Amino acid sequence: MSAAESHSFDRAIPLDAIRFNEQGLVPAIAQDYLDGTVLMLAWMNRDALQKTLETGEVWYWSRSRQELWHKGATSGHFQKVRSLRYDCDSDALLVTIEQIGDIACHTGERSCFHQVEGTKQAPPADTLSGLYRVVRDRRDRPVEGSYTRKLFAGGDNKILKKIGEEAAEVVMACKDDDPGAIAGEVADLFYHALVAMAHHNVDLRDVYRILEERRR
Amino acid sequence: MSAAESHSFDRAIPLDAIRFNEQGLVPAIAQDYLDGTVLMLAWMNRDALQKTLETGEVWYWSRSRQELWHKGATSGHFQKVRSLRYDCDSDALLVTIEQIGDIACHTGERSCFHQVEGTKQAPPADTLSGLYRVVRDRRDRPVEGSYTRKLFAGGDNKILKKIGEEAAEVVMACKDDDPGAIAGEVADLFYHALVAMAHHNVDLRDVYRILEERRR
Repeated sequence: MSAAESHSFDRAIPLDAIRFNEQGLVPAIAQDYLDGTVLMLAWMNRDALQKTLETGEVWYWSRSRQELWHKGATSGHFQKVRSLRYDCDSDALLVTIEQIGDIACHTGERSCFHQVEGTKQAPPADTLSGLYRVVRDRRDRPVEGSYTRKLFAGGDNKILKKIGEEAAEVVMACKDDDPGAIAGEVADLFYHALVAMAHHNVDLRDVYRILEERRR
Repeated sequence: MSAAESHSFDRAIPLDAIRFNEQGLVPAIAQDYLDGTVLMLAWMNRDALQKTLETGEVWYWSRSRQELWHKGATSGHFQKVRSLRYDCDSDALLVTIEQIGDIACHTGERSCFHQVEGTKQAPPADTLSGLYRVVRDRRDRPVEGSYTRKLFAGGDNKILKKIGEEAAEVVMACKDDDPGAIAGEVADLFYHALVAMAHHNVDLRDVYRILEERRR
């Protein structure tokens, strides 16, 4: 983590700068620290924000129960604060969290934002995570004629040959100093790495966790 | 994109299901469709949501001006809708967008959520994007003894040798069917690919865009 990004979150939000609404509340967005998925939107009053800053775990104000709500106190699904931001109007908060149990929603879903036309859908995440969902879906529900399906059908030897080939193509594109070609070849390399991972049941979040550790 | 994820967003939000508050408003989170960065939180009334659904561009309700607000109409920074979700309480919206100009905030910042202690900080994004910021920072502000710095100092031949090496290590870890080792080697491969990209000024967003196109 660069010096500029390294901060103890407890001094990241000057309480007095935050503009609470007429009910004394501010909306707080909870976002997964690895893949950027928005997990929930809830509300904090000044006490909840203070508790959050003091404890490093997220506290909200429950509007339905009209009480302070230590997220996870009953479910075990605590939210560990990784970073805090507030917006240009100082009337909304963004809390990056590690979601214990990877379940934020009281329905048991990972994210509260799972509704589309009343059916459940995975919430949007970063491109690589979204693509990995598709790759695993192709593995589990083969689509005739799909290139991804052919790779899985060929097994390790077919998939890993492509890893070597795409790595060589990244090298050549760099030697040619061709940014457009590099972007394309890195995209190919990432995609085939995801296929190899899916073939061996490796979680992309584990890769992200390793990279996060190294940033520190 | 898998069949399950493929939908025209215009039927993604049943207007009547949304619970607007006593002022007739619902908070809407705008999130970047590539790296998951939260760009802003603003408010929609029923008309704004309907306009958003009809036009495929984001409309809000301006609480300060008390009028419908077609985001980008004055700045040119329109927001193209990619997907819509609503939460389990039906009282918050998540809008995944393509931000024209890559600037959502009226201050000229990419995201409204850039404040930490009153100083500006890049908003959180997915792990790879965050790591790429650090890698580019190491390139531009070398840190003595940093491994990343040594790679840049060695240039293409040092960096690309590592791409080949890490690709071979992914292959071996897969042949060993060792998920922990695979995750570690893929992390190494991704990291060195980012170093190669930074060395050649390739934008990670370009890689994401290529992968998004292929999902379709």
